[in-house]
Amino acid sequence: MTTQFGPSYVRAIAPYIAGKPISEVAREFGLDEARIVKLASNENPLGVPESAQRAIAQAASELGRYPDSNAFELKAALAARYDVPPEWITLGNGSNDILEMAAHAFVERGQSIVYSQYSFAVYALATQGLGARHLVTPAVRYGHDLDAMLAAIDEDTRLVFVANPNNPTGTFIEGAKLEAFIAKVPAHVAVVLDEAYTEYLAADKRYDSIAWVRRYPNLLVSRTFSKAYGLAGLRIGFAIAQPELTDLLNRLRQPFNVNTLAQAAAIAALGDTAFLERSAALNAEGYRTLTAAFERLGLEYVPSDGNFVLVRVAKDAADNGAGERVNLALLKQAVIVRPVGNYGLPQWLRVTIGLPEENAAFVAALERALGAP
Amino acid sequence: MTTQFGPSYVRAIAPYIAGKPISEVAREFGLDEARIVKLASNENPLGVPESAQRAIAQAASELGRYPDSNAFELKAALAARYDVPPEWITLGNGSNDILEMAAHAFVERGQSIVYSQYSFAVYALATQGLGARHLVTPAVRYGHDLDAMLAAIDEDTRLVFVANPNNPTGTFIEGAKLEAFIAKVPAHVAVVLDEAYTEYLAADKRYDSIAWVRRYPNLLVSRTFSKAYGLAGLRIGFAIAQPELTDLLNRLRQPFNVNTLAQAAAIAALGDTAFLERSAALNAEGYRTLTAAFERLGLEYVPSDGNFVLVRVAKDAADNGAGERVNLALLKQAVIVRPVGNYGLPQWLRVTIGLPEENAAFVAALERALGAP
Repeated sequence: MTTQFGPSYVRAIAPYIAGKPISEVAREFGLDEARIVKLASNENPLGVPESAQRAIAQAASELGRYPDSNAFELKAALAARYDVPPEWITLGNGSNDILEMAAHAFVERGQSIVYSQYSFAVYALATQGLGARHLVTPAVRYGHDLDAMLAAIDEDTRLVFVANPNNPTGTFIEGAKLEAFIAKVPAHVAVVLDEAYTEYLAADKRYDSIAWVRRYPNLLVSRTFSKAYGLAGLRIGFAIAQPELTDLLNRLRQPFNVNTLAQAAAIAALGDTAFLERSAALNAEGYRTLTAAFERLGLEYVPSDGNFVLVRVAKDAADNGAGERVNLALLKQAVIVRPVGNYGLPQWLRVTIGLPEENAAFVAALERALGAP
Repeated sequence: MTTQFGPSYVRAIAPYIAGKPISEVAREFGLDEARIVKLASNENPLGVPESAQRAIAQAASELGRYPDSNAFELKAALAARYDVPPEWITLGNGSNDILEMAAHAFVERGQSIVYSQYSFAVYALATQGLGARHLVTPAVRYGHDLDAMLAAIDEDTRLVFVANPNNPTGTFIEGAKLEAFIAKVPAHVAVVLDEAYTEYLAADKRYDSIAWVRRYPNLLVSRTFSKAYGLAGLRIGFAIAQPELTDLLNRLRQPFNVNTLAQAAAIAALGDTAFLERSAALNAEGYRTLTAAFERLGLEYVPSDGNFVLVRVAKDAADNGAGERVNLALLKQAVIVRPVGNYGLPQWLRVTIGLPEENAAFVAALERALGAP
């Protein structure tokens, strides 16, 4: 007799497929690590800011102690930056932790969660992990259909996930439309607004979602230090919401979920506006380079407001092997990007915007990959 | 109308109360941080090993990248150390993450979890977070009553938590008794054996729980780098279990739950046997110092196999204010220990074994605290 441990809804989960680290690709394809260009995980190509590295070196001797469970100093810095009480802030082990905590805190088995087709894979995973019902609305031009999402909310819905900009497609919803949507979501349904890429928005697209948090007790804004702040390897994200939602998250939060160095580095990175500006400028320049190349090569792409671009590498509309095939051809040339077949986009690749020389290496490798049969 | 977000079982959780960090106690009591002796969180008084600090410094420039989700190198090191396939290993953001993942992976709402009175607070929190039923067996001499735990298993039980040595009491179950217990647990009920303090066991008390993992497909052994390995601030623990349980954990594991520096530091610490031996020897010496002082002061204590001792500070059997009162008197003398009223032990304090000078400072402060009315 085979014993079957675990709830049926847990057994049904297909685990998240993480991008392969450089070392693993090097082993698998027999490549020199130093030659590899990794544009697969929407990391900041400038790496970790020097200000954060200094903070890490200073805090490294304290690591025998547990982290500050309440993150007094980092919460004070975030509270000052966003003009909210520290009690409105929850820290996560990356914003992935925030998204999981929110689903677990607001939704129980059998209740439903609304999110869009082609939005971040963790929304589906968090829903499955609870045995909750998925209400997935079809995307419009690869982005969220807010009207359809409103219409999808049923009597059992307790949570709506919205990503802006969205990953993996890069689509953007303008602030006024987004606030109008939030205002229409029933007050007992929580809205998690995932703004992992917000720091990359051009000045004319920015909006003040923290002001909305003051207005809507059912809104939680999720942010991360993994993208523009360059701290992906340390794991730190945060949520801002009014006390009713924040209090629930804290009942489920693992007490030492954010490590000591992540707290110290995040304080440094938060104050390093020069690094953030350099990152955004480099990203805007790289976006122009990549999209110009896609246009020259006659490849469809989705206009992006993140630090990545989704590009269609199939020439034939029926060629659903294109994403994997071109990806393999790129890997053999030591370029790692992200195939997105698991998102239902088998003809597309998501490429992170890198340094100018990385973008150039990717474009050259892509041309060769597309030229080869 | 007040909206009430979240499932009733989440709203009912009382959040974990973490020990206060040194900086917070300093602020609250107007003390000089450098003067404070913290013996509250079962941390290694030797701090982080130098070998791990070097590994951290080397890896700090890679932090712009996400961690290796599969932790190839650390799993290889652990697999070699414990002679198990890497596929039997799951890493956690501290062993707290392992305990939460296990509960979530093996148990659903309405099913039950068995654990002992006076065992680690996270077992109760994980149970509550799922809306599962608690089957808590009374302790015997402050330790696990294994027969009572077996008898408590009902048809809905899916998980048993056993801690050895146990926190916060320090009690120990000898290996043969523990294996006999595991053999009697029904095959469809998972056993999580929490061995956070196993590295402190005297040579004549050690047993090979990894051999049991090979024998029992329902056994998961949980370990941590937060105690004897001195890496509490980095957050890293691990589980060893056969593929059926491991596979379920991985369906729920947040893909980047263990940060890059934790992985690098753990590899270094795992190879630093000299540090581990120094830590265990220092602990054994401190245990003799503390228990001799308790005997001299006529204080009851629970014999401990961990890096802490539970001591009763009430002189009057009815004095349930003793723990909090003596704790406050210690705080005013810049000594932080852990009151355990939240464990139902209001007359007791848990004190971590520190450096010789820290132990001496604690004993002196305790004498003054007990002398004062």
